[in-house]
Amino acid sequence: MGKVIIATGIPGSGKTTVLGAAKERTNEKFSVVTFGTVMFDMAKKKKLVKHRDELRMLPRQKQREIQKLAGEKIASMAKSETIVVDTHCTIKTSSGYLPGLPEWVLHAIKPDIILIVESSAAEIASRRGRDDSRVRDDEDEEDIALHHEINRANATACSILTGATVKIIYNYDNHLDAAARDMAEIIEG
Amino acid sequence: MGKVIIATGIPGSGKTTVLGAAKERTNEKFSVVTFGTVMFDMAKKKKLVKHRDELRMLPRQKQREIQKLAGEKIASMAKSETIVVDTHCTIKTSSGYLPGLPEWVLHAIKPDIILIVESSAAEIASRRGRDDSRVRDDEDEEDIALHHEINRANATACSILTGATVKIIYNYDNHLDAAARDMAEIIEG
Amino acid sequence: MGKVIIATGIPGSGKTTVLGAAKERTNEKFSVVTFGTVMFDMAKKKKLVKHRDELRMLPRQKQREIQKLAGEKIASMAKSETIVVDTHCTIKTSSGYLPGLPEWVLHAIKPDIILIVESSAAEIASRRGRDDSRVRDDEDEEDIALHHEINRANATACSILTGATVKIIYNYDNHLDAAARDMAEIIEG
Repeated sequence: MGKVIIATGIPGSGKTTVLGAAKERTNEKFSVVTFGTVMFDMAKKKKLVKHRDELRMLPRQKQREIQKLAGEKIASMAKSETIVVDTHCTIKTSSGYLPGLPEWVLHAIKPDIILIVESSAAEIASRRGRDDSRVRDDEDEEDIALHHEINRANATACSILTGATVKIIYNYDNHLDAAARDMAEIIEG
Repeated sequence: MGKVIIATGIPGSGKTTVLGAAKERTNEKFSVVTFGTVMFDMAKKKKLVKHRDELRMLPRQKQREIQKLAGEKIASMAKSETIVVDTHCTIKTSSGYLPGLPEWVLHAIKPDIILIVESSAAEIASRRGRDDSRVRDDEDEEDIALHHEINRANATACSILTGATVKIIYNYDNHLDAAARDMAEIIEG
Repeated sequence: MGKVIIATGIPGSGKTTVLGAAKERTNEKFSVVTFGTVMFDMAKKKKLVKHRDELRMLPRQKQREIQKLAGEKIASMAKSETIVVDTHCTIKTSSGYLPGLPEWVLHAIKPDIILIVESSAAEIASRRGRDDSRVRDDEDEEDIALHHEINRANATACSILTGATVKIIYNYDNHLDAAARDMAEIIEG
């Protein structure tokens, strides 16, 4: 029986890079799934949507059902191997910070560990500035520090509902190797 | 069907002023209710109290029932229009920070958005000093910053239990217009 | 009927010292129980373990049952007098911050107040350095400040699930008397 590790990090934290580098540093077998993709597959199978963008058009109650089913799917996948769930503590929207792991998702997924990949606010602002593939976010360092604060509080509340631990992995510039080793150790657990 | 927006802010944040200024800037129809008043009306109707001060004398279990009924009343009001609930994330008491939105209230209200009106700790301390109508609070800027930290964590935990977003609106001195526009946008949402 | 007060504080906060000093300053009758000890007694009675170290070897589901029973035991003890529960918001482990008060424990204990004994990060680092009886923790002041942030968020989420207040008691060097008086006032409450 594997563990369920939820991997989070704000845009620019380098979460995906760290996960990739960790995979090269461990012999532990594990799969990475993106929560949004599991949700989309579930909604497509139920013939509720054809395209991913339609997910957010679903009525609120339908969205929650799909979130819950996606969570249960992930919990069942973890019966045979460790699953790392790529997702967000919160997503910054025009209406505020939207929780990526509401209560009904947490109770379905039953995570063992909630990871937050962090870097300094200055480094994240600089990485976002260099990334031409994304719409440049106009958040300054203070906004990024606030998003970190909200996500730490968020992960902490998630841990109370599930018993999961909260682990912060620092991914500082030029120290990817240290972050990848921390991540590999958590996965090997 | 309207939204339920919970509007919070510590004393001196200017929450009520921002709500009033937002009302002048939008054509969206919405009502503002004070959570404590809805609770009092509910308890009076049930013949449990005659005066508002008696609310806190009720046995704990009775208080919770009234809180839950008040939450359900607000959720039902939101069937016809958007409701802004004027309340607090936490109230500072001699026994510590008392949660204004415990789990049973959140599950009854089912909010869409939890707003926090904030200002800098220095501005809040200065506004409280000028306000002769209130008992002057002896909190210094560090205490105010801590109350902000507790309230952000509080709103974040509320969002996990409900799926609501957490939106921080800054109400800096001489920038009421910006705060009112932010508030109006959230209400129009 | 007594109150249930949960007393928390990271290693070096001086929680136990403050509790002892508070006992000397009040005539209020109260008992202090250590959550881990109540759990161990419960597991021993159920013939699940003989030694305390075996507790963490129990299957996860069994551990949760014991935690829940220990919480219910504490709630029943509080029928006759005020109980102070000596425990942790979170325990720092190699897998991250482990919650000491997950949802099922909170719902069983039904606390009235969650106390956090804090000191400055510099003082805590210095106290830990002087303590030869413990394995010296290699946390620096930034790590300690982060642990404080996590524990405040943790206690805040606990308060939403239970309605308990969150009270921070500062135990600065050479000011034990002030901390003990704050603690005694909360217990007398």
